[in-house]
Amino acid sequence: MLSEGQVSRSNYFVLKGCLRKFFINEKGVEQTTEFAIENWWLTDNLSYEHRVPSEFFIQAVEKTTLLTISRDAQDQLLYTHPKMERYFRFIYQRAYAAAQMRMKYIFGLSKEAFYHHLNDKYPEFVQRIPQYLIASFLGFTPEYLSEIRARKIS
Amino acid sequence: MLSEGQVSRSNYFVLKGCLRKFFINEKGVEQTTEFAIENWWLTDNLSYEHRVPSEFFIQAVEKTTLLTISRDAQDQLLYTHPKMERYFRFIYQRAYAAAQMRMKYIFGLSKEAFYHHLNDKYPEFVQRIPQYLIASFLGFTPEYLSEIRARKIS
Repeated sequence: MLSEGQVSRSNYFVLKGCLRKFFINEKGVEQTTEFAIENWWLTDNLSYEHRVPSEFFIQAVEKTTLLTISRDAQDQLLYTHPKMERYFRFIYQRAYAAAQMRMKYIFGLSKEAFYHHLNDKYPEFVQRIPQYLIASFLGFTPEYLSEIRARKIS
Repeated sequence: MLSEGQVSRSNYFVLKGCLRKFFINEKGVEQTTEFAIENWWLTDNLSYEHRVPSEFFIQAVEKTTLLTISRDAQDQLLYTHPKMERYFRFIYQRAYAAAQMRMKYIFGLSKEAFYHHLNDKYPEFVQRIPQYLIASFLGFTPEYLSEIRARKIS
């Protein structure tokens, strides 16, 4: 849907399913930075907004049904229906607030504590997403995640 | 201006000066998550939006002149002047895009590379902010930052 180096020309709204955004680090490892499940929007906003090549990839994690809008169509929508500004204001405000909390957890919690936090707060999400992607989101190896899970069960 | 446990009742716009947002981690160390210089807004959006106690502190880093708006006044402003929705949509969109890139640097760059990136891209910012706060933003000790700087100069 989006690969590094492309301009992100679409903004995606998830009707059913799940998307993820990731990049490939210097070691060649995929690092997931965001997921979008039902009723979330996802794009690379910097690329979408400024029409510059993206530094991210976006792909579906499971069978996914999307609405998609192009940058020009979204501009047109906002121009002809200014009331939609309010809708998108809320969307970005919520996404920004979520990113702030994410930052706090990255710096404030150990990787293991971050996993337990995620598991306690969003159990359905953790159940639903393949474990190797949860590991990629938390920034550790699938092996280390298995270890933590085993430790918790025992 | 804001302490952990308080509800963030104001949204701040920096006319001149600089604010920072931080939290205190389990080891008692201040971790800075965001700065706001001229023409940026800053609050704890989660607390401001949902009127819940904040997990952050906000304070001025230098002598700062601000505009401040309360949550109720901002709601009123948006209600009576819906055109302002567009303005705030851009504000949050920009802040969200910046947070996405920040996340990429946190995961994708070593702490040292992150410092050099910041220094290359925002030299005036790095000059302006006290070094111990740059260290607090990058997530390492002031001593380690001095070391990196010394290494670069030599």
